[in-house]
Amino acid sequence: MNCSLARTLELIGEWWTLLILREAMWGTSRFDDFHLRLGIARNVLTARLETLLKAKLIERRPTEHSARIFDYVLTEKGWDLFPAVVALMQWGDRWVHQKQGAPIVFVERSTGVQIENIALRENGGRVLNRAEIEIRPGPGADRCTRQRAKNKEL
Amino acid sequence: MNCSLARTLELIGEWWTLLILREAMWGTSRFDDFHLRLGIARNVLTARLETLLKAKLIERRPTEHSARIFDYVLTEKGWDLFPAVVALMQWGDRWVHQKQGAPIVFVERSTGVQIENIALRENGGRVLNRAEIEIRPGPGADRCTRQRAKNKEL
Repeated sequence: MNCSLARTLELIGEWWTLLILREAMWGTSRFDDFHLRLGIARNVLTARLETLLKAKLIERRPTEHSARIFDYVLTEKGWDLFPAVVALMQWGDRWVHQKQGAPIVFVERSTGVQIENIALRENGGRVLNRAEIEIRPGPGADRCTRQRAKNKEL
Repeated sequence: MNCSLARTLELIGEWWTLLILREAMWGTSRFDDFHLRLGIARNVLTARLETLLKAKLIERRPTEHSARIFDYVLTEKGWDLFPAVVALMQWGDRWVHQKQGAPIVFVERSTGVQIENIALRENGGRVLNRAEIEIRPGPGADRCTRQRAKNKEL
């Protein structure tokens, strides 16, 4: 499928995978901590970590304590999903956790002020509503995507 | 789990579900078009649309053509996932589609200029890097989340 979303979901489109990444973003790095904090079965966790290692979203580092204990830490590629994770979380805050309020919030460290909601913005920073946005074939569009654009199916 | 991401993934954390939403964002509304354009099996499509209808992410509208043909269109709740979908897609453009370039791009309709990459921003609009961001328990944090914050496990 000529779509970056489909390719992304091939890598992370599994419930636990994204939660493991979230947990790593919060600072968790040990197998036992992932296991405990996520309540994920050890065999499932092993398999998902394997996928994430192979996709180079996390890397495994030996610890000073023992050659058999590792830290699983995010790579740049993994950290680069931070905005997407926050976007999904803020959506959940708005539509699922509405009444209780957000379980966690993100603040600018130096000011303590909450960060902006993730939004689509034009060049100058103004938030765009969806009617102001147009979808066009990009440099990596295949024939099928170009055809869809021509047919006004984009 | 006291986490808006977990709750979000319960609703949309399935490969096809997010791709169906994407397809609806591109303007697809008919069952047969979803089937054709996504190459998704009819029974799977039926089940996923059912989930999306129940979660009120899409709604079903009768068409003028026939009482048996429906349009599946996004609700506000569904459209509100647009930034998250774009964030995941831009990540894919950067890390998976790197060489070919983005299959599709988003431009501001009135100017034709590409929109900004999704990012975390402070109040005034400046892009924040991850070291500038702190995670804190929000108003909906449960005891466990508060305890994690106390233990510096957030």
